[in-house]
Amino acid sequence: PGWELSPDGKAISRGWKVKNFARAAQLANLVVWLAENANHHPDLQFGWGYVTVTFTTHSAGGVTMNDVIMAARLDALTA
Amino acid sequence: PGWELSPDGKAISRGWKVKNFARAAQLANLVVWLAENANHHPDLQFGWGYVTVTFTTHSAGGVTMNDVIMAARLDALTA
Repeated sequence: PGWELSPDGKAISRGWKVKNFARAAQLANLVVWLAENANHHPDLQFGWGYVTVTFTTHSAGGVTMNDVIMAARLDALTA
Repeated sequence: PGWELSPDGKAISRGWKVKNFARAAQLANLVVWLAENANHHPDLQFGWGYVTVTFTTHSAGGVTMNDVIMAARLDALTA
């Protein structure tokens, strides 16, 4: 399961399944670090066994290369 | 804005506004620590300037005292 475009076409999201709550929090923190490092911040959802990350570029009102770059980085780190 | 019951009556949620993405991540991590410590795990959503936490007791199919206790702890820590 890769990145999916939102119904309105303005954001991309991907979910990960992980083995418990602690692993979800750890992956969320990895995303936080990348986001702060790039100064490009997603929305995150997580709980027991899952993390979902959504990127959009608010200033552009949609998906930009910055979002795609962040997505590719996360894919590489979680492959 | 305090805790709100979900439309189906099976969960309680509260949102916090914070000043940026890093503060949201920090509050999320505080929730993670409490959750692991109590072995009672919420669902979280966060991003730039906000955190939302949702508690339910899956084994009971609804809200129990455990959820209310966690909510009260978070209220105290963020007051």
